[in-house]
Order: sequence, then structure tokens, then C-alpha cells
Amino acid sequence: MSIAIIGSGALGLYYGAMLQRAGEEVHFLLRRDLDAIREDGLSVISISGDFHLDNVKGYSTSNAMPRVDTVIIGLKTFNNYDMDTLIRPLLDDDTAILTLQNGLGNEEQLASLFGAQRILGGVAFLCSNRGKPGTVHHLGQGKIRLGEFAGGLSARAQALAEMFRRACVPCEAVADLKKARWEKLVWNIPFNGLCALSQCTTDQLLAHPPSRELVQTLMAEVVQGANAQGLSSDIVSTDFAAHLIDLTEGMGDYRPSMMIDRQQQRALELNSIYAIPLQHAKQQGLAMPQTTMLYSLLDLGEQAATTD
Amino acid sequence: MSIAIIGSGALGLYYGAMLQRAGEEVHFLLRRDLDAIREDGLSVISISGDFHLDNVKGYSTSNAMPRVDTVIIGLKTFNNYDMDTLIRPLLDDDTAILTLQNGLGNEEQLASLFGAQRILGGVAFLCSNRGKPGTVHHLGQGKIRLGEFAGGLSARAQALAEMFRRACVPCEAVADLKKARWEKLVWNIPFNGLCALSQCTTDQLLAHPPSRELVQTLMAEVVQGANAQGLSSDIVSTDFAAHLIDLTEGMGDYRPSMMIDRQQQRALELNSIYAIPLQHAKQQGLAMPQTTMLYSLLDLGEQAATTD
Repeated sequence: MSIAIIGSGALGLYYGAMLQRAGEEVHFLLRRDLDAIREDGLSVISISGDFHLDNVKGYSTSNAMPRVDTVIIGLKTFNNYDMDTLIRPLLDDDTAILTLQNGLGNEEQLASLFGAQRILGGVAFLCSNRGKPGTVHHLGQGKIRLGEFAGGLSARAQALAEMFRRACVPCEAVADLKKARWEKLVWNIPFNGLCALSQCTTDQLLAHPPSRELVQTLMAEVVQGANAQGLSSDIVSTDFAAHLIDLTEGMGDYRPSMMIDRQQQRALELNSIYAIPLQHAKQQGLAMPQTTMLYSLLDLGEQAATTD
Repeated sequence: MSIAIIGSGALGLYYGAMLQRAGEEVHFLLRRDLDAIREDGLSVISISGDFHLDNVKGYSTSNAMPRVDTVIIGLKTFNNYDMDTLIRPLLDDDTAILTLQNGLGNEEQLASLFGAQRILGGVAFLCSNRGKPGTVHHLGQGKIRLGEFAGGLSARAQALAEMFRRACVPCEAVADLKKARWEKLVWNIPFNGLCALSQCTTDQLLAHPPSRELVQTLMAEVVQGANAQGLSSDIVSTDFAAHLIDLTEGMGDYRPSMMIDRQQQRALELNSIYAIPLQHAKQQGLAMPQTTMLYSLLDLGEQAATTD
């Protein structure tokens, strides 16, 4: 299958490399890593074993890239304004677009530009970051849950999941993408925001009883927001939150991406992770006061902290 | 009247200097400023006119100080554990103790040590900070509202208020000290905490619409907490909050003391301004969720930030 990776950060580089290693034809739109990858290829330093790809197809603009079967989007969501320019040159009549971006609203934006029938979304559970140019580090996990924006379990989604699994990426096709997205938010909303705001790691948060309680309060609020969205089945609040906290305990002194972004004075993905979920909850008559407060505090910090 | 100032930070030095200038006999317990004041006296740099006191009675321990008519307490509340040692040597049979400290719980602690009948409390609206040793800066305001811990409008409280007014310190004796304390909290709880957490000044907060809304939400929550305490009359929520926000707009780029304390990695007065008010609200069945969240975030920061 021919694939274009748009947004070659740690996520795009890692999944693209895994797919190319498994024999897929992968084209990367590159910025920071362009020269390094054209000269020396792409290195993956992974807890599952390192590998190197000698010949990587890297491009500086989408116009130079071929049309592909599938476009995979790994852009930071505050770059979504550029989606039309970046994606349109890659589309054949039946090209599928899979966004692995964070939070809510990405599928809707893609659908408004390119038609809803093309769009799939996926939730990635991946710990990775970029090393020196031409190198990506895979620190843990990597599972993807993907599904159709229009809902339902399609043959196309199952084929994509099968492709990822052949590439040693755990992947599951789901019928209810919206539920998968909200389940991820139950983790992202408390931990991304609280870690970014406090510059404490996940284990420091959980070791401080009032913060641990605050994580639980926020999780309960997100679950309530999720269950108001007409999901195929409700998220069971207490079980699911306890499960996520157990998982997080196992991650040690983890630094969520938003914490690193704030530390490095980069913009935060506040729109997709906070503003749009809050809008969706509000449309169902739910206020989510603690999430609103966290969003306000993070947004206030953006006035001061952001340089780009 | 003979007066001992215990806790000679910016507040203690300023009010002590004003009282001495007006002819009262003032004794200062000093730490940082002891040598400078013994050598060169005390300078007040004030928006209402600078002045200098050549002869200031400064002491390094309470045991060296005489017994006085009135003890005025300006200690940071996290030093309250030391109250017994610092205050007992100063007490005659009918010495009054006036605490001008922040938040709730100070009168109770003093009453348990020295008897409730001695205790008065006051709420100070003062913008001041310390300059080089021997110098205190008075940046604005200065009004005190004081009253009996036991409640009611006593002759003693009225005499103290009269003494402050003779010293050009606006001062009002109030019958309901508890209400005065909670009214101050309606300002302190949002602005001290949010400014300390975000390191934004009051005008930056108010210029950011979600933070302005958060200030209003917190104020409403504190007013509700206050009105559950059996005050002599209710605080009228919307009017009072709007009045405080107007006042704060007039203060420009103000930096609340807690913001400065956090910036300089000093301990914050979280117990008296957050923990005890939250306990009092909880005793009346009120949760104050946004205040609780702010307190959690501030307390989390204490784990990392505090050096003393």
C-alpha cells in the first residue's frame, strides 16, 4: 500500500518507519529531519529493538509527493489550518485519510475539506520522542485503535488495522471511534494539563494526595461528558478511571507531551484536548467546571509562555 | 500606649513606624532589619510622604522586650507554631493581642494559648514591601478593619481604631470580625492563588476572559462559603464581587504577596488562606470545588518550589 505521512514528528516518523520496514511504500513529508534522512536514512531506537532504514522517501512539499492510497496525519493540531495545502495534492479518488492526532475536532475538519467518506481516525497510545535529526526514539507502548469517522466497522478500517499489525504495531479496528477518542481524553485531560501546568511528572502527581484526588475528579467529569455524547455504550466511570490510574502508576516518572511542550515554550494542543471537548459537553448541557478551570489556567499560561 | 510589633515584615514595620511617628511607644522584634535599624533607624518610603525615625527600639528576642499594652502580630502564618515563645514574655494581665495576619485560624490559635478575652483581629488592606534593611516601602492603601475575636463592638477595639486613625492609618472598628475576615478572603482566594500559580499580575488575569470568569466563579464560591458561617448579615455576592474587581482594575499590574513569595521560592500561607476556610465551609456542608482545586495546585507546587 502507498502511504503518505503528513506531520513527521515522533509519532509520524515512528509509525511510518514501522510500516516501511514491513514492506509498505511510505512517503514522508519532512521539515526538521529532511536533510538528515535524505543523507543517512532514518534510525528507530526502540525498546522492541533498534533498526535503520537506508532509503527513505522524504519530501519538503506535498506537491512533490505522489498520490497515495492512504494519508496518515500526525500534525500537531494547532497546524490544522494548513491541512488543505498539505493534503490535497496527495488525494486520488479513493484515497483514505487517517488522522492519528490528539483530541477532538480533527476528523470534522478533514471531512469538511475532503468529504466525510474518506476520513478515519485513530487513537495512538505511544511514548516516543525525536532524537537528533534522522532519529526517533520509541520509549514504550504504540497501540492504535482506529475507526471510521462515519461510524461502523468497515472493511477498510479492518484492512488498515491488519496492515499495522503486520508491521508489529498492535492495532484494533473499532466501530465507535467517538468512544475511543473520549476514552483517551479521560487520560489526556487530567494528566496532560496538570503535568503541563505544574511541571510535575505523572508519578509526582499521583504521590500527592490532593492532586491524585483532583485527577480522579477530572476523570469522573470527562467520563460524564463522554457518556452524554450518545456512545454505543457507556464508559463505566469508576472502573475505567481506576484502570487508567493503575496504568499510569506503571509508567513511572512519565512526562506527557504537553508537559514537554510547555517546558520548551511550544504551543499546547489546547483546542483539540480541552476547548472542543468542553464545547461538545456544553452542547449536551454539561458544564465540566474542573476541566474548564484547568483549561483556563493552561490558556492563561499560553499568553506568557508561547514563543511560536 | 506601649506596643510590641511581632513579625516585622513590610506590614509590621509600616504600621509600627506610623504609630511611633504619632507618639506611641513602639517596640519592634526584628530579624533581618535589626542591625540596620539599630544603627540608622527606620525609613518609610511612602506614597503619602517619606519619613525617617532616628530612634527605634529594636530587639532580637521577645525576652529582652518590656511588657506592653498591646501586641500587634504581623507574622507570616506558617510561623504561628512559634507564637507562644514570641508573645508570652510581652503579656501583662490585661495586654491585648491584635493579629493583622492573613486568612483564618490566627485568632483561634492565639486564643488557645493566651485566652480568648485578650484577642482582637484585623484585616489590613496594605500594599507594601521591604526595601534594603532599615527601609520599608508603602505602595498604596493601608486601611485596617479590626474587631474583637469574641464579637461585638468593644470600647477597646474602638480605642485601637482611634489610635490608628491618629497615626494617619484609616481604621474602622467592626462588630463582626468574622465577616471582615471572609470579605478579605473573597479577594485573597482568587487573586493570591491564581497570581502565584500563573505568575501573572492581577491586570493580566483580568485581561484574559476565561481567567476573569474564573475569578468571578471563585469569588461566588467564597461568598457562598462566607454566608454559611452565620455572619451578622450576608455578603451580597454579585455586588461585592463586582466592587472588588473594579478595585483590582484600579491597582494596575499588582503582584499579590503570594505571587512574590512563590517567585522567590518562599513558603505560601496556604493553611490560613485556603485549608482553614475550606474546613469551615465543609463544616457547613459546602464543597467549594474550584477553591479546592486551586488549593491542590498550589500545594502541589509547594512540594517542588519551597526552599524554606
